Amino acid sequence: MSTPTDAEATGLALLARAEALARHSDSPDHYTRTWLSPAHREAARQLEAWMREAGMSVRTDGAGSVIGRYEGASPGAKALVTGSHYDSVRNGGKYDGILGILVPIACVARLHGRGERLPHAIEVVAFADEEGARFQTSFLASRAFLGRFDEALLERRDAQGVSFGEAMRAAGLDPAAIAAHPRDPATLAAYVEVHIEQGPVLLDEGLPLGVVTAIAGGTRHRVTVAGAAGHAGTVPMARRRDALAAAAEMVLAVEARAKGQPGLVGTVGMLEVRDGTGNVIPGEVSFTVDIRSGEDAVREAAEREVFAAFDAIAARRGVKVSAARNHATRATPCSPRLQDLLAGSIAAIGCPVRRLASGAGHDAMVMAEATEAAMLFVRCGAGGVSHNPAETVTAEDAGLAAAALGEFLRRFAPAA
Amino acid sequence: MSTPTDAEATGLALLARAEALARHSDSPDHYTRTWLSPAHREAARQLEAWMREAGMSVRTDGAGSVIGRYEGASPGAKALVTGSHYDSVRNGGKYDGILGILVPIACVARLHGRGERLPHAIEVVAFADEEGARFQTSFLASRAFLGRFDEALLERRDAQGVSFGEAMRAAGLDPAAIAAHPRDPATLAAYVEVHIEQGPVLLDEGLPLGVVTAIAGGTRHRVTVAGAAGHAGTVPMARRRDALAAAAEMVLAVEARAKGQPGLVGTVGMLEVRDGTGNVIPGEVSFTVDIRSGEDAVREAAEREVFAAFDAIAARRGVKVSAARNHATRATPCSPRLQDLLAGSIAAIGCPVRRLASGAGHDAMVMAEATEAAMLFVRCGAGGVSHNPAETVTAEDAGLAAAALGEFLRRFAPAA
Repeated sequence: MSTPTDAEATGLALLARAEALARHSDSPDHYTRTWLSPAHREAARQLEAWMREAGMSVRTDGAGSVIGRYEGASPGAKALVTGSHYDSVRNGGKYDGILGILVPIACVARLHGRGERLPHAIEVVAFADEEGARFQTSFLASRAFLGRFDEALLERRDAQGVSFGEAMRAAGLDPAAIAAHPRDPATLAAYVEVHIEQGPVLLDEGLPLGVVTAIAGGTRHRVTVAGAAGHAGTVPMARRRDALAAAAEMVLAVEARAKGQPGLVGTVGMLEVRDGTGNVIPGEVSFTVDIRSGEDAVREAAEREVFAAFDAIAARRGVKVSAARNHATRATPCSPRLQDLLAGSIAAIGCPVRRLASGAGHDAMVMAEATEAAMLFVRCGAGGVSHNPAETVTAEDAGLAAAALGEFLRRFAPAA
Repeated sequence: MSTPTDAEATGLALLARAEALARHSDSPDHYTRTWLSPAHREAARQLEAWMREAGMSVRTDGAGSVIGRYEGASPGAKALVTGSHYDSVRNGGKYDGILGILVPIACVARLHGRGERLPHAIEVVAFADEEGARFQTSFLASRAFLGRFDEALLERRDAQGVSFGEAMRAAGLDPAAIAAHPRDPATLAAYVEVHIEQGPVLLDEGLPLGVVTAIAGGTRHRVTVAGAAGHAGTVPMARRRDALAAAAEMVLAVEARAKGQPGLVGTVGMLEVRDGTGNVIPGEVSFTVDIRSGEDAVREAAEREVFAAFDAIAARRGVKVSAARNHATRATPCSPRLQDLLAGSIAAIGCPVRRLASGAGHDAMVMAEATEAAMLFVRCGAGGVSHNPAETVTAEDAGLAAAALGEFLRRFAPAA
């Protein structure tokens, strides 16, 4: 068990690494790191260096994920996999994903420093793409890690018109090899992911760490509203079929429905007016709808009602609405056995145990398809803000996360 | 007076020219022509050729406007100026602006063909920029024609980051010369502009032509809403300060206020979510507000109420709203004397006379600051749609416009 002073010293070193890594950004003004950008490749090289320094052998997989392996007492043992992602949303926070890579590297470094080997191997995975900001993908890297890559993605293009395959070749990756080496689930002992909570629950209750019970399911749709463009000065209000005014009502319908039910959230995060100009009535608008809940039935009922509301708004305004679902995940319960093991580890370092659901999606959802999975949440400062430059974590909390994960790694044994 | 058959033949030729000119477009897919683009320069050369063919001497001014002069009976006489603009909005209509250039060229060609000189000179002006789509300017070319150029514009940049001055130099124009030769108002006899109505009034009443009584005044604001970005899955609805949801309410407030009063229109034509991504709560949204009325007091009262509504929405939602006015024009009455002269010319070719206000802004608003000004409206087909590729005018109506303008040119005499 670490003393508070140990935890804080470890935490300060973790925060300094997070700070250094955030300098590898697509933008000079803020932290944005999208899949396979030059900054993304630099970050990969930095992570690789830190993994080697911690005594791991390192490889990069077909999607650009960096995988460090610290062998167990006997070579070729099953691996307890732990990690998170090193891409970001646009103008994001420095700890989202990164904390779940740096904390286990610190744990392995400590084992390595003491020359300690565990009965199982440890693999620290820095997933190359989870947010999907560049190609609107979901869990690209964890899917690729398991060999579950969707070949249709190769045809997608980013906002600059670069295709998925071109982006891979430019980064020195082979599009044909991305899913060529599927991971045999028999080599995996379990998956555990450390992650900043990205919400206000632990902060509000004054607790540094939490055990995740389940990850909320969610769907994302792209909605297009087609009205009629026209001159902003000459078309009387009563004759208009304004696509933006219709979309504005739809944005408010999403918000109103989600507000009506605890545990449900609904967000329109992107909205674009096609050929938008100040003196033209908008003819076409497209936007995204993201709806999530820890209970699938709650989410599905909300979706049905939201899309019925869209149809009613469109009919009343004489516009057309169409929607395509481009992301859907069911709620994922975490392994009860690993939850208990995490709870015991948190208690062993002297912290209270809080169990809570995750409102955000995580690579653990994909990994849970292949092995037992669990998550450890770390308190998020600044009101619980994430996907935002104001995202913070304290050095003490980061250090406690490392202490709890270290305890977990030692207590862990593969399921019988 | 032209016979209907004459009018239709003239009209068919006019429509063929409009069709040919629209091929000079910034986009291969639709008609967009922005100030000083390669397509814009090609269109200028085509217009120059047609002006010379019609017997005019041609010059290009500092803003890229093409000015054809057909001398009167005595050289150096005051000029009756007539024209319109040859730039377009994005994905616009082929007749907006263009009709007011091609119709007078056809009238001058007819005078030239008969070797006829009028007591006054005629100048046909093809204004290089009225819509302002590239640099968000207003009436750039007609202001420059009069020597009223705003030097501060030289610092503006387009969406690709090209500065106003760089764009000019790339097109072979000298930024220092744009307002170097102000037009002496004493050389202007009057200004008359032919323009497609861009609204449904003449169409609904079955009339080909109209005399404009006044041009509506309008203001355009850029509004920014600042909320708090956050993770779409983890921030409970009650804790959000979603900039897009707030902006959606504001869009609907503009629409509701404008709907409440005849002769008033309000439009949000452009809306952008900064760093918008599907899984992030929008932290900042900006949008435009365009409000117009033929009566300044009506417009000003609506503006006050709309911005008060914005403040109330922002306060209730805990977001900040700020607005900058980047365009304002008061309503412009047309010259009663020229209105009567246009009415007489329309009656002389056998058409009913309808007087109506213009909901759109036109170069005539700027020209009215220097000389007597008037406008002739031509019926707009397809439901009165404009700023849209569906914009149409019939060959017969175009021909009647040429006949009426020809009549006007001959009846015109400078004010005593």
